[in-house]
Amino acid sequence: MTYDVRPVGVVQSPLTDPASAPKQGVEGGPEAWLAFDAAVAFGLGDLRVGDDVLVLTWLHLADRSVLAVHPRDDPTAPLTGVFSTRSSDRPNPVGIHRVRVLEVDGNRVRVSDLEAVDGTPVIDVKPVIDGSR
Amino acid sequence: MTYDVRPVGVVQSPLTDPASAPKQGVEGGPEAWLAFDAAVAFGLGDLRVGDDVLVLTWLHLADRSVLAVHPRDDPTAPLTGVFSTRSSDRPNPVGIHRVRVLEVDGNRVRVSDLEAVDGTPVIDVKPVIDGSR
Repeated sequence: MTYDVRPVGVVQSPLTDPASAPKQGVEGGPEAWLAFDAAVAFGLGDLRVGDDVLVLTWLHLADRSVLAVHPRDDPTAPLTGVFSTRSSDRPNPVGIHRVRVLEVDGNRVRVSDLEAVDGTPVIDVKPVIDGSR
Repeated sequence: MTYDVRPVGVVQSPLTDPASAPKQGVEGGPEAWLAFDAAVAFGLGDLRVGDDVLVLTWLHLADRSVLAVHPRDDPTAPLTGVFSTRSSDRPNPVGIHRVRVLEVDGNRVRVSDLEAVDGTPVIDVKPVIDGSR
């Protein structure tokens, strides 16, 4: 049994090279635009500047066959099961990014600190519940 | 363009009725087992009792056509865009559940405070980065 993830938008970012992207947004991700499909515009209607949200992405460049990695691409780090890491290489490469809403312009939303590269599919946005990710 | 989500395990829980399940685990979700497929066992090898993790699920009972809801099923609450709510009804119904690992038994992991109902597909597990979800 599998399920279809249907992207609702896409990341528009100056980051284009996964190898040089920061590992996490808090380590220096740039501002980026999320360009949403018109079909989901009604779902965006209550996003406000200043909201802290979790952006969920589908990390489409990931290697889904990977089950263990050297964390942070450090070859001297012990090989670690992917479910104990934030590696993008994993069976279902869903990215969770905590960002702040900086601007809402129709179906486009500008956010802070997003480490996902340009062209990454956006699959969901959720409010932060209790201060983090 | 769509992507295939391939579940890596399933929730085994005393919760069977979505209507009576708590809205969030911190509101009183029970302990539950996550039964993983043998194929991903290698990825589980570094999960330890006491770890705080995010369990990602595919909320397979959700209505994916919903773009706005009355939060918390309260008909008097203003209709709100789903991307500003934690409703399970949304275009891509990925659940994010912060839980603690209580026991590891081969490919089965017992966790605290999980509000997902029995039979919910598990799609990923990630370590908590900075104290929350």
